[in-house]
Amino acid sequence: MELESLTIGQYEFVQNAFSFGLAVMAATTLFLWFSRGLVTPNYRMAITISGLVTAIAGYHYLQIMLSWQSAFSVTVDTIETTGSPFNQAYRYVDWLLTVPLLLVELILVMKLARGETISKSVWLGGAAALMIILGYPGEVADTAGVRFTFWVLSMIPFLYIVYQLVIGLRGSIDKQPENVRGLINGAAYLVVVSWLFYPIVFLFPLIGLTGGAAIVAVEVGYTIADIVAKAVFGLLILAIAIRKSENETGERVAVPGTGTAKEPSSAGGSAKTAK
Amino acid sequence: MELESLTIGQYEFVQNAFSFGLAVMAATTLFLWFSRGLVTPNYRMAITISGLVTAIAGYHYLQIMLSWQSAFSVTVDTIETTGSPFNQAYRYVDWLLTVPLLLVELILVMKLARGETISKSVWLGGAAALMIILGYPGEVADTAGVRFTFWVLSMIPFLYIVYQLVIGLRGSIDKQPENVRGLINGAAYLVVVSWLFYPIVFLFPLIGLTGGAAIVAVEVGYTIADIVAKAVFGLLILAIAIRKSENETGERVAVPGTGTAKEPSSAGGSAKTAK
Repeated sequence: MELESLTIGQYEFVQNAFSFGLAVMAATTLFLWFSRGLVTPNYRMAITISGLVTAIAGYHYLQIMLSWQSAFSVTVDTIETTGSPFNQAYRYVDWLLTVPLLLVELILVMKLARGETISKSVWLGGAAALMIILGYPGEVADTAGVRFTFWVLSMIPFLYIVYQLVIGLRGSIDKQPENVRGLINGAAYLVVVSWLFYPIVFLFPLIGLTGGAAIVAVEVGYTIADIVAKAVFGLLILAIAIRKSENETGERVAVPGTGTAKEPSSAGGSAKTAK
Repeated sequence: MELESLTIGQYEFVQNAFSFGLAVMAATTLFLWFSRGLVTPNYRMAITISGLVTAIAGYHYLQIMLSWQSAFSVTVDTIETTGSPFNQAYRYVDWLLTVPLLLVELILVMKLARGETISKSVWLGGAAALMIILGYPGEVADTAGVRFTFWVLSMIPFLYIVYQLVIGLRGSIDKQPENVRGLINGAAYLVVVSWLFYPIVFLFPLIGLTGGAAIVAVEVGYTIADIVAKAVFGLLILAIAIRKSENETGERVAVPGTGTAKEPSSAGGSAKTAK
């Protein structure tokens, strides 16, 4: 990356985007974990993992932000690179953990049979991990040929996952209660659409996009894609879990809620006042 | 900003205001989350989000304070700018997240029908986000013309929100129980009044207010406005939620406490007192 070509305004915009990403991920984590008590125990693991994904992403946004700050020496009217490298690889460390877990969230909230849950988690999660592992050598490669080769290799598990989400899960989605099918379809498509950003950005250096504006586009674009794929996705998983909990208990979960509602169960740091 | 014109006393006053803001936001967050168990499940998401707003604001006051400190080199009797820029934009990053959530708090505590809750949250929250996004290019602009143009653009969603709070929500507020109507009106007006500060301050540089005293007025003024709009507002939301919980359960919530009272429900990290 040609970090030297960045202006002060571009540096600050990316810095603000990283800080925004950190705040969104941390806030979403707390919100998801506070909301665990709103769903029946069937869906609590999906919510726990949704919050873990945003928590892990928040940690990596902190690391990325600190690495970004250390790569530049900025004053009111000058900007210089310090020579300290900007560590892009934190993104890969993050994705290696969060991307398989994202798919597991979706599978868990569908509440399939146990064998199916495990096999789909292993296959989709494994493909996701493989996709990230194959992308990394391309990201750090010096030559366009190596970069492109690993892009192609990484696209194989990527396309397998897209196929599974759009076609392979069809049967399982059709068995979901009617009032959540739209939301689950939405979550599956949200994954596919937000993920499309990554392989496109990966090709930027190959087509000559490497200046300051390209760096801003890549970093801000990755941040937005991460927020959509992790935070927005996590909230969608929560919405699905709440609706399915209502289906199961026949009670309206108290959010945003009309009418009286009991919490669907007693877990989640609750209290009991006995005499 | 003409940071050079600041005196040591002015620097320290602003520093203390930022530290005050951080402490108020952090303390309010903890108070709100500790108080979640005092309200029925119907209002817990409103309290969770109120605490998230102050938590996010606290994080940004920490960032703003650190940025402020790094912009100056201060001894007992000298003050110099270091050249490190004071990053005003953290305020925009903060507002982009917290301002839509503030409106969602107010809508959630009203406990409208679910469809109405979602549509009002999307419209008011979306308008709030648009208002912040349109303000940012003006804030970082070099010329008065650009600053003024984006001020005007940003005022459009601002006025829409004010209209909704003062007129549009009227019907929903009138349907609230009588003993909380005054509080909810108060919360809506608190938003309008505390928000008026922001567009006025935004215009300061255009009317020539840029010296040390103006910087103090802007930074301390923003801090007071943030405390009113987020912390005081959050506590008002809690008061509304407590009173509505009492209406629903017919029991006095044990705060500030007269007589014995049971918690209205069983959740929220409380203790167990067994004999």
